[in-house]
Amino acid sequence: MVKVAVVGATGYVGQELFRLLSRHPQVEIVAATSESYQGQPLGQVYPGLGDYAPQVLLGLEDDRVMAAEVIFTALPHGAALEIAPGVLGRGKVLIDFGADFRLRDPASYATWYRHPHTERELLGQAVYGLPEVYRREIAGARLIANPGCYPTSAILGIRPLLVRGLIDPDSLIIDAKSGVSGAGRSLSLGVHFCEVNENFKAYSIAGTHRHTPEIEQELSVAAGRNVAVTFTPHLVPMTRGILSTIYAKLVEPVDAVRLNQLYREFYAGEKFVQVAGPGQLPQTKEVQGTNNCRLGTAVDERTGRVVVVSVIDNLVKGAAGQAVQNLNLVCGFPEARGLEFPTLYP
Amino acid sequence: MVKVAVVGATGYVGQELFRLLSRHPQVEIVAATSESYQGQPLGQVYPGLGDYAPQVLLGLEDDRVMAAEVIFTALPHGAALEIAPGVLGRGKVLIDFGADFRLRDPASYATWYRHPHTERELLGQAVYGLPEVYRREIAGARLIANPGCYPTSAILGIRPLLVRGLIDPDSLIIDAKSGVSGAGRSLSLGVHFCEVNENFKAYSIAGTHRHTPEIEQELSVAAGRNVAVTFTPHLVPMTRGILSTIYAKLVEPVDAVRLNQLYREFYAGEKFVQVAGPGQLPQTKEVQGTNNCRLGTAVDERTGRVVVVSVIDNLVKGAAGQAVQNLNLVCGFPEARGLEFPTLYP
Amino acid sequence: MVKVAVVGATGYVGQELFRLLSRHPQVEIVAATSESYQGQPLGQVYPGLGDYAPQVLLGLEDDRVMAAEVIFTALPHGAALEIAPGVLGRGKVLIDFGADFRLRDPASYATWYRHPHTERELLGQAVYGLPEVYRREIAGARLIANPGCYPTSAILGIRPLLVRGLIDPDSLIIDAKSGVSGAGRSLSLGVHFCEVNENFKAYSIAGTHRHTPEIEQELSVAAGRNVAVTFTPHLVPMTRGILSTIYAKLVEPVDAVRLNQLYREFYAGEKFVQVAGPGQLPQTKEVQGTNNCRLGTAVDERTGRVVVVSVIDNLVKGAAGQAVQNLNLVCGFPEARGLEFPTLYP
Amino acid sequence: MVKVAVVGATGYVGQELFRLLSRHPQVEIVAATSESYQGQPLGQVYPGLGDYAPQVLLGLEDDRVMAAEVIFTALPHGAALEIAPGVLGRGKVLIDFGADFRLRDPASYATWYRHPHTERELLGQAVYGLPEVYRREIAGARLIANPGCYPTSAILGIRPLLVRGLIDPDSLIIDAKSGVSGAGRSLSLGVHFCEVNENFKAYSIAGTHRHTPEIEQELSVAAGRNVAVTFTPHLVPMTRGILSTIYAKLVEPVDAVRLNQLYREFYAGEKFVQVAGPGQLPQTKEVQGTNNCRLGTAVDERTGRVVVVSVIDNLVKGAAGQAVQNLNLVCGFPEARGLEFPTLYP
Repeated sequence: MVKVAVVGATGYVGQELFRLLSRHPQVEIVAATSESYQGQPLGQVYPGLGDYAPQVLLGLEDDRVMAAEVIFTALPHGAALEIAPGVLGRGKVLIDFGADFRLRDPASYATWYRHPHTERELLGQAVYGLPEVYRREIAGARLIANPGCYPTSAILGIRPLLVRGLIDPDSLIIDAKSGVSGAGRSLSLGVHFCEVNENFKAYSIAGTHRHTPEIEQELSVAAGRNVAVTFTPHLVPMTRGILSTIYAKLVEPVDAVRLNQLYREFYAGEKFVQVAGPGQLPQTKEVQGTNNCRLGTAVDERTGRVVVVSVIDNLVKGAAGQAVQNLNLVCGFPEARGLEFPTLYP
Repeated sequence: MVKVAVVGATGYVGQELFRLLSRHPQVEIVAATSESYQGQPLGQVYPGLGDYAPQVLLGLEDDRVMAAEVIFTALPHGAALEIAPGVLGRGKVLIDFGADFRLRDPASYATWYRHPHTERELLGQAVYGLPEVYRREIAGARLIANPGCYPTSAILGIRPLLVRGLIDPDSLIIDAKSGVSGAGRSLSLGVHFCEVNENFKAYSIAGTHRHTPEIEQELSVAAGRNVAVTFTPHLVPMTRGILSTIYAKLVEPVDAVRLNQLYREFYAGEKFVQVAGPGQLPQTKEVQGTNNCRLGTAVDERTGRVVVVSVIDNLVKGAAGQAVQNLNLVCGFPEARGLEFPTLYP
Repeated sequence: MVKVAVVGATGYVGQELFRLLSRHPQVEIVAATSESYQGQPLGQVYPGLGDYAPQVLLGLEDDRVMAAEVIFTALPHGAALEIAPGVLGRGKVLIDFGADFRLRDPASYATWYRHPHTERELLGQAVYGLPEVYRREIAGARLIANPGCYPTSAILGIRPLLVRGLIDPDSLIIDAKSGVSGAGRSLSLGVHFCEVNENFKAYSIAGTHRHTPEIEQELSVAAGRNVAVTFTPHLVPMTRGILSTIYAKLVEPVDAVRLNQLYREFYAGEKFVQVAGPGQLPQTKEVQGTNNCRLGTAVDERTGRVVVVSVIDNLVKGAAGQAVQNLNLVCGFPEARGLEFPTLYP
Repeated sequence: MVKVAVVGATGYVGQELFRLLSRHPQVEIVAATSESYQGQPLGQVYPGLGDYAPQVLLGLEDDRVMAAEVIFTALPHGAALEIAPGVLGRGKVLIDFGADFRLRDPASYATWYRHPHTERELLGQAVYGLPEVYRREIAGARLIANPGCYPTSAILGIRPLLVRGLIDPDSLIIDAKSGVSGAGRSLSLGVHFCEVNENFKAYSIAGTHRHTPEIEQELSVAAGRNVAVTFTPHLVPMTRGILSTIYAKLVEPVDAVRLNQLYREFYAGEKFVQVAGPGQLPQTKEVQGTNNCRLGTAVDERTGRVVVVSVIDNLVKGAAGQAVQNLNLVCGFPEARGLEFPTLYP
């Protein structure tokens, strides 16, 4: 059993984390905080959590948070920078959902998040919490930067291509589509039902979205050289799910069956990454509510390009589920503990 | 551990039953059948079930079905009439999702389902599988008629009013709204995305929907006299969920707080029926994916009417979840076994 | 040609009014105001209006508004009370979308809108802008209170029953369902995409919604006696459309065909009210974007109740379209001018 | 006035054509056919068309079709091949929504549509009905192949890049997303509400979609050399709208403002192609129900790529509206006649 606290429990990621933790057999949730709903039980703010979340929401600074051994922070960017030293100083583990410890280069953080990085030493200790890449490092980490939702879907989809040297790294294009829950629970015209419903749009295109440097950092690691990508996010009129369509130029011809085979081998043994058969394509609803990433692969022989389709549930493998996977690694639990259940469909 | 079989596993109810049974700790699924997908693993038909449903789909008549102790039938109306004698004759338990054993009066069945009832003796043994009403009878039953989705939501919402004698039984109106999955996976213009999306309609109104006699039968039991209702189903452009808005004339004034209190007392101890506080109203999304029925109560003092709002997930408490609850009762398992998890939200 | 101004042009009702007025052959829009977008062309705020709305948005108090002969006000409740005296004092016509002049009883207004009615004399001159009821009065009016969306759908659906004396007026129940655009463009958690999508809920039930007194006022006129109703609004996960399901007790048996015939006769000659044939039911999408109200009628012989289904587009017949219809009457134009076009479907 | 007939009036494209033609001031619809609904008025099949479509649906072969001067065919691929000789032989104009006369190379048609091209002579006379490219040719044509929906959005978005020589033609990637109405009204599991709603998927990827050769044909014309593209269609859980995200490598650096300027100049004077300002991006809902194509342009300087976003309503500019535009050109009417109205929003 591990004692955990959730700081920022009433956003969509926070409550999703509760959904997962509340049925994790080796977790005890000792504290949950919320600025907006302090004093109410979480199960009242989200009636669907009900008795599974009886915890009364505390203030951010409440001492009881420190009774936990592992602390999750689901806060706006910049907030974890302030909390991290105290948490780590007391020997606890921090799993942060924000971007504060994702970019290894503090200058890049300052550029993209318009906020100087004030904890460079801690940054040096941080591990990027993508278990399929950094499983071993995560197991020994005290500070885990849980990846962004778009990066998770893109990196898992692209890595086999780069690691196996199949493509020209300069040719990568990521056309990603996300459900609205990725934008969080805050109010804005951009999440007004009537503005989103029966509508489809691109946003933050042409290298302006903050997930761009995070994606490029990890792809550069995979390629062993600097990689720059064109990343285009879109908003889909649905609540959950990300689908990334990935394009790259093959360095030499590979046939579709062989490519599929390579992907299957690459992810053999990975519980949460599944490769659809040749000619099959994953859909976002197939992973709704689960920690799965499903991949589909194809070759456009006429143009010499590979096309990869990668789907995740942005709130699970793209956020809360991946954090639980990281928790399991940190605590030495079986990696899939608390995450083994099928999709809610349809 | 109990061995079960699912006959008709590839409809929405069948696959939802798999979702639940596959993580039930005391269930072993020994057979699953499908007319359309025979020979394929269910987890391939529904990729979201994946490894949780490795069973290769059998033909309807496959002998392996009879290796089960409990058999679920999710088939078109009339089909269970043919299967039941064989199943029960071999000493097995049958939990049927259809209407074949729901109406105690075979003449009523013949009228509403345009099919003579050929198994009147078995009908006499059948128990209506609504645990909150027939818990004891279900525990000893061999043939359980799992209730319809609309009836479940209506009956649970109305019973306290009738049992406590608060209303005029002749004044009951049930205005119900359902997501599209209630119509099943078969193709028709009525479930074409473009015809449903951004649309709202009533259908089978003014006493013509087949769930009418089922609702009236159970309300008559609760009232101790014949009850006829006006029942109006509507189609909501969403996948899951039923909300029933129930109207009745109070026989004498009751204030809103007292009414709410009466409901809470009535359902005290019921795991799967929850009563929202005075002034609060349940929403369908609060029960998405769960076996919960949530009720809201109000009094319109100006007109002397009570208004009750009842929500369920039509595929869970309205079908597969309730069947698992019945299974637990039949097998002597804790009633909530395999059904204890929070809502998927948002 | 008539010169008009739109005060409050950037809400959903305001922009919908522009959509209609911009192609009305006898209308010149001389001014449009907006608090939030002052200085921008409306066609930039709503790119879909584009060149059809080149007007630069003015401040509320801008003098150019008074160059109009007819002024539409789409403002929060209470605001028209302040504007009306000036507008009418200058001999102009005011068509108000708010509730300030809908309730004939100023005390009722004060109770329901928590705001004293400060313009009782003007209230005496106001006409309720439902052309199918007050056509003649509207033609001579200077101050028109454009009806609410729910009331429009309910009143048109119920009037034949009351005027023809077919039902017990005390038995009326209105179960109404609305798309989200009825809530306007303001931000709130209740219109957040993720909270509405795949969700269905009731709200302001049991006689607490502000449209209740408006509905009752007009039904009382139709019945020639006081009528109190139970009115329950619900939110549908779609953008446009209202469907009201109306229940009442017949005073004596009427068969379904005869009832349908009575409705057809009642609305014979009405361009914008259409009665579906016996056994047919209207759907909201059938009126999307049009000024039509479509009605379906049925009799539940088992319970002696009539069931009427009434659908409108809440932004057209429920707001902007009806206002144009009123404008046509005031100006002596053909009543359907600018409103004659088929539905956008699907 | 021109007399027209619609062959295949009850699909989504056919009824949308009726919506537009019924208010076109210079069109008389003398015949409409339907295999499935023969003998019924179209306005009964689509109640939203109502009195605007009183025409009783005829059989496909009905002589009255030939009373028209212009005949629209909205039929499955292959059917126009059979009809065209008779229509043209009688001196009439044919505007075909299918693919039978879109591909100039009959061998390509045979490959992609698995059907030999039996009318090669007529094919030689056919004009590709994209007015922004072939305005002059259309004006004199007797046989017009109305473009596919995806090709319309892609070609209009890409042409300026190729015509101005800004990009490497071999680098083109088109990532397109369509609403469900593009799949037509036929039944299939792929358009079942529960399978589409809250779901997002790619389909027919990696050069396998039939619109690929059509896009490449027209881009090759623009480039003056053979162009092969990677085209990936996706299905969006909405009814109407296509958004294409287009990627290409710049041959030399162009800044974002200059690129935007080039697009504006390229489409100056085009009524139905609008270019959003630098930094602005179009959304599908902005063109709902209209014949507009809206374009957004951006430069990803880090990777040297241009990103263009192109949106249309697939049933209007992608089908019925473009056909009316072609009709106007053929008849010498003002090109925008019957198509001048703002968007239905929200």
